[in-house]
Amino acid sequence: MANPLFDRIALIGIGLIGSSIARLAKRDGLVGHISVTARTQESLDKAMELGIADSVTLDQEAAVKDADLVIICSPLGAYSSIIETIAPGLKPGAIVSDVGSVKEAVVRDLAPHIPDGVHLIPAHPVAGTEHSGPEAGFPELFEDRWCILTPPADADEEATKALSAFWEAAGSNIEIMDPAHHDLVMAMTSHLPHLIAYTIVGTATDLEKTLRNEVIKFSAGGFRDFTRIAASDPTMWRDVFLKNKDAVLEMLQRFNEDITALQRAIRWEEGDTLFELFSRTREVRRGVIEAKQEKMYD
Amino acid sequence: MANPLFDRIALIGIGLIGSSIARLAKRDGLVGHISVTARTQESLDKAMELGIADSVTLDQEAAVKDADLVIICSPLGAYSSIIETIAPGLKPGAIVSDVGSVKEAVVRDLAPHIPDGVHLIPAHPVAGTEHSGPEAGFPELFEDRWCILTPPADADEEATKALSAFWEAAGSNIEIMDPAHHDLVMAMTSHLPHLIAYTIVGTATDLEKTLRNEVIKFSAGGFRDFTRIAASDPTMWRDVFLKNKDAVLEMLQRFNEDITALQRAIRWEEGDTLFELFSRTREVRRGVIEAKQEKMYD
Repeated sequence: MANPLFDRIALIGIGLIGSSIARLAKRDGLVGHISVTARTQESLDKAMELGIADSVTLDQEAAVKDADLVIICSPLGAYSSIIETIAPGLKPGAIVSDVGSVKEAVVRDLAPHIPDGVHLIPAHPVAGTEHSGPEAGFPELFEDRWCILTPPADADEEATKALSAFWEAAGSNIEIMDPAHHDLVMAMTSHLPHLIAYTIVGTATDLEKTLRNEVIKFSAGGFRDFTRIAASDPTMWRDVFLKNKDAVLEMLQRFNEDITALQRAIRWEEGDTLFELFSRTREVRRGVIEAKQEKMYD
Repeated sequence: MANPLFDRIALIGIGLIGSSIARLAKRDGLVGHISVTARTQESLDKAMELGIADSVTLDQEAAVKDADLVIICSPLGAYSSIIETIAPGLKPGAIVSDVGSVKEAVVRDLAPHIPDGVHLIPAHPVAGTEHSGPEAGFPELFEDRWCILTPPADADEEATKALSAFWEAAGSNIEIMDPAHHDLVMAMTSHLPHLIAYTIVGTATDLEKTLRNEVIKFSAGGFRDFTRIAASDPTMWRDVFLKNKDAVLEMLQRFNEDITALQRAIRWEEGDTLFELFSRTREVRRGVIEAKQEKMYD
């Protein structure tokens, strides 16, 4: 193997994101050894069977031993317990990172437990699908996607560079951001859309049975896109909303005001108000396409 | 041409749906002659240039002359004016149909003007994209999609059969429904999702400029799916909300209650409430996939 970026990495959690990291690291020889730990033996067996782990153990502290890079790929609610368990086993000079969708809480939960000489560099690859588990991963998941790093003000520059190089090798574009600002942006681009999708699918679920079956049958009219988003991992998303509570509530409040205004426009048949909004939103779509966040016809 | 289903059809409007109908009718030789009328000469020129019309005219009454099947492919708000204009030109025995997303209003607006001996069979192909205009159409648009017919109680059986045969030839599955029930189902599967998508994209548009640009930049986290839906034709959607006001307000009220409950659960950090909803919504997704309204990985 020519020049691995890290001699040994440890992945804590081997779901969609963890297994995608393992797959691409294996495919491109990015690391020397992949140590994997997970909550269940079943996941570890699956990781070995898929050939994406060099060693597996249920013992989190043992998993991180000698690792140069530790990536926490678990739901946000597990971070506190994980860092307390692994802290004694961390190698001096190691980088501790993660893939969580909320960043201020990560610093709050992890930073106090990071031993001297170990570098905390939180990260968030903005990529995913609605599928979960070790089998859902694929090595191309991060290609042409953003990976946002939120290093603390006093972070070691070399450590930030090394982690950036890893994500660049995954095909991602790196962005450095303040954790609180990251959480506000994600509240709007990701957390609120998921909350809304979960809500509307829930609303449909509560309809009388005949109507609900018809909603499923005729879902191609727009609803099915929401069902895809609302099929995402429940534990992960519960933790996102609890950990990014303030920013989500702020954006949700704005959304509520706007939908109430629209509700009123429909009730009073104010067609111009509707038309004006529906025209304005096309601009944002053009922006998304120009920003290459989506191909024109995908 | 072997056995066209209709000797002559007239399409009133040649946007995404109208031009898709014209394309498939041409491709498969479903009709003898395609007469097209539209609001602008530009659209008519485009239709000729694309080779999807046999004759074009800005004169709606002239367009429907001798047509065995007239399909109104215009925004719902234009129906009243259209039917008043074309009624004198309709051929005895002709079928008048449409492709609108609301059906009770169609009967209300069209039925009083339909001459004796002409058959009104409203239809709604549940298919579409966020693109508009004559160039956005493609002949496969209706394949494996539902086409809902809402014939009046006293509708001519042969006329209903003939229209069904046309949509079956387009690759669609036919469903017969009561107009009011259709509107309720669509309020949930299509109209509410569009309203919500327009709203959240509007909310994002109103953010301070820096934040808005970042929302666009990092839209891959869920938001971009909403921008696609919210890029749909503004005139069409304004009319949908005005014409299906009662059903949309009913479903929107249910949604509002549900999102308020979720907002409260986040504020009070009731993780179990969130987890329970997020798990429940996966069932609906499975239903959508089983109903083949979406392939597993598209």
